[in-house]
Amino acid sequence: MSIEDNIRKVTPYVPGEQPVGKVIKLNTNENPYPPAREVGEAIRNMNMENLRLYPDPECMSLRKALADRFDYDPENIFVGVGSDDVLSIAFLTFFNSDKPILFPDITYSFYSVWADVYNIPYERIHVDENLHIKKEDYYRENGGIIITNPNAPTAIGESPKFIEDILKHNKDSVVIVDEAYVDFGCESVVDLIDKYKNLVVVQTFSKSRSMAGMRIGYAIADKNLIKVMSDVKFSINSYTMNQPALQAGIASVQNEEYFRDCIDKIISTREYTKERLESMGFTSTDSKTNFLFVTHKDIKAEYIFEELKKRKIYVRYFNLPRINNYLRITVGTREDMDVLIENLEDICNL
Amino acid sequence: MSIEDNIRKVTPYVPGEQPVGKVIKLNTNENPYPPAREVGEAIRNMNMENLRLYPDPECMSLRKALADRFDYDPENIFVGVGSDDVLSIAFLTFFNSDKPILFPDITYSFYSVWADVYNIPYERIHVDENLHIKKEDYYRENGGIIITNPNAPTAIGESPKFIEDILKHNKDSVVIVDEAYVDFGCESVVDLIDKYKNLVVVQTFSKSRSMAGMRIGYAIADKNLIKVMSDVKFSINSYTMNQPALQAGIASVQNEEYFRDCIDKIISTREYTKERLESMGFTSTDSKTNFLFVTHKDIKAEYIFEELKKRKIYVRYFNLPRINNYLRITVGTREDMDVLIENLEDICNL
Repeated sequence: MSIEDNIRKVTPYVPGEQPVGKVIKLNTNENPYPPAREVGEAIRNMNMENLRLYPDPECMSLRKALADRFDYDPENIFVGVGSDDVLSIAFLTFFNSDKPILFPDITYSFYSVWADVYNIPYERIHVDENLHIKKEDYYRENGGIIITNPNAPTAIGESPKFIEDILKHNKDSVVIVDEAYVDFGCESVVDLIDKYKNLVVVQTFSKSRSMAGMRIGYAIADKNLIKVMSDVKFSINSYTMNQPALQAGIASVQNEEYFRDCIDKIISTREYTKERLESMGFTSTDSKTNFLFVTHKDIKAEYIFEELKKRKIYVRYFNLPRINNYLRITVGTREDMDVLIENLEDICNL
Repeated sequence: MSIEDNIRKVTPYVPGEQPVGKVIKLNTNENPYPPAREVGEAIRNMNMENLRLYPDPECMSLRKALADRFDYDPENIFVGVGSDDVLSIAFLTFFNSDKPILFPDITYSFYSVWADVYNIPYERIHVDENLHIKKEDYYRENGGIIITNPNAPTAIGESPKFIEDILKHNKDSVVIVDEAYVDFGCESVVDLIDKYKNLVVVQTFSKSRSMAGMRIGYAIADKNLIKVMSDVKFSINSYTMNQPALQAGIASVQNEEYFRDCIDKIISTREYTKERLESMGFTSTDSKTNFLFVTHKDIKAEYIFEELKKRKIYVRYFNLPRINNYLRITVGTREDMDVLIENLEDICNL
């Protein structure tokens, strides 16, 4: 026997590259606009002497701010170190059945990684040929369901009615709806948590709130579900949210107008870029996110990806079955997108 | 069947109370001194616009700063959201045997919580009647070992030779040495990681570096062990350390002098307090930490705990077998300790 025998073997999730230097970075769905000015001020105005003290393990101030925004109670809110932390705890808390959990074959690639690390059986359900989730495929026995809406990397958003149909057919399972991109034009199902006591809605500050660097995510659900998630969290790490994260999070939530302005600009740039790309021979799904998922009628995605990289423009290419001829392109500023378009025109010899 | 059946049932760790308002807080082993001035400056001087970007998932800048301080390579360093995050990942990574892991019956109470949540079999080994760990008890087959040194809440520190004897007898197990309090007068075994490829040393910024509010902990070990810990970490949450944590951590590590000054003051106040308490009828272990673990010859610990609480002085009382007549008292400023002493004199009718 050796120590090797008892080491957990995993295939970790691989995040998008983090290139340094002067590049156009359209590969990790970051927001091109800075967070609200008040976010930086909240951090700068902290009493730095108090960093000697533990933060509130209950994160009550941030949970209250989020509760006010969504018109729920703090007991309906769980906060974590990015939505990945929240989702990981939700998997550990809710997915303890011998039956497989269900999620689409084309979706956030972290789901299968968490399932593997926590020994959760799972089944990937094929999306249709247009990359749409077929809700009827989720009307069957299971150990839990997780749906990203809008889905990633397909960018396709479904209606609250669509999600509610899945909920109606799964009253004995916890259904997690990962709404990381919901603010970019999709309708949230957060209003359904009172009606469906098995629904967990997860959102993040990383995309629409321009705060990927702060690591803040949250879940909204029935108080009983939040309570058991908190119990599991307190069995792993009591104090996860540091003082700057709590302060920055509150300042962001209290700046709804700036938040809406940034989103409007991104949606407008997305539609502009989509039109330009389509005129170049690209096909794009109907994106409800801050990225486009595109394929070109003649030119291989991998080739375009490599060519863009040579020109210091980073987009995301997944060498995975069914989507290995697609590119996921984050919507940056209008200026970023014009540089992208110019380079794509060149690569496509237009 | 209902959703209840698949929910993970746990008994979470309960952290010390976080009272608000004007109190003397000697219950969670926080440092009474603020972090180095440069820590606050590093946070204030951040480019807040860059918060829109993900932090470096590899945390390379902070790992380099720590590697420089300990004279290792960044590949020997793992950083996490407080040492609880680091320890939790280490448990998940290394403790996958059917044989029980071993730790003292009186030690950090989170160990059994992690073992429970991750389904790790464990055995608690009795410390002796003077609360000392008996190293020979760890010379036997096991699925891993974790030792806190100095131990908490006993405050007793052991020599590197003592730890090395345990390592020598356990070459087929991963041995974690949790050195959360090591800077307050105990000698680290960090120099042994080259010699013992199965040793993981864990330290924290929360105590000696006055940064409980920032959530930074780290492990130092052979590169192979750090690599597998990182793989597990990347299977749970790619981006855990937010931008302020990375900046603040670097600034702290680069201020060795301030760090040493604070520690010297705390050690001096600890010895002063210990002497005063002993003159009142208390017995104290030989503390190598920033807290005292004391028991009174006549008066019940629980009574003293409650009386102090009425006077808005918070210390920690564990209603647990073998130590339910002890108090754990964090070493605060000299002024805090004089108020404590005065109140204890009153409670003890001196």
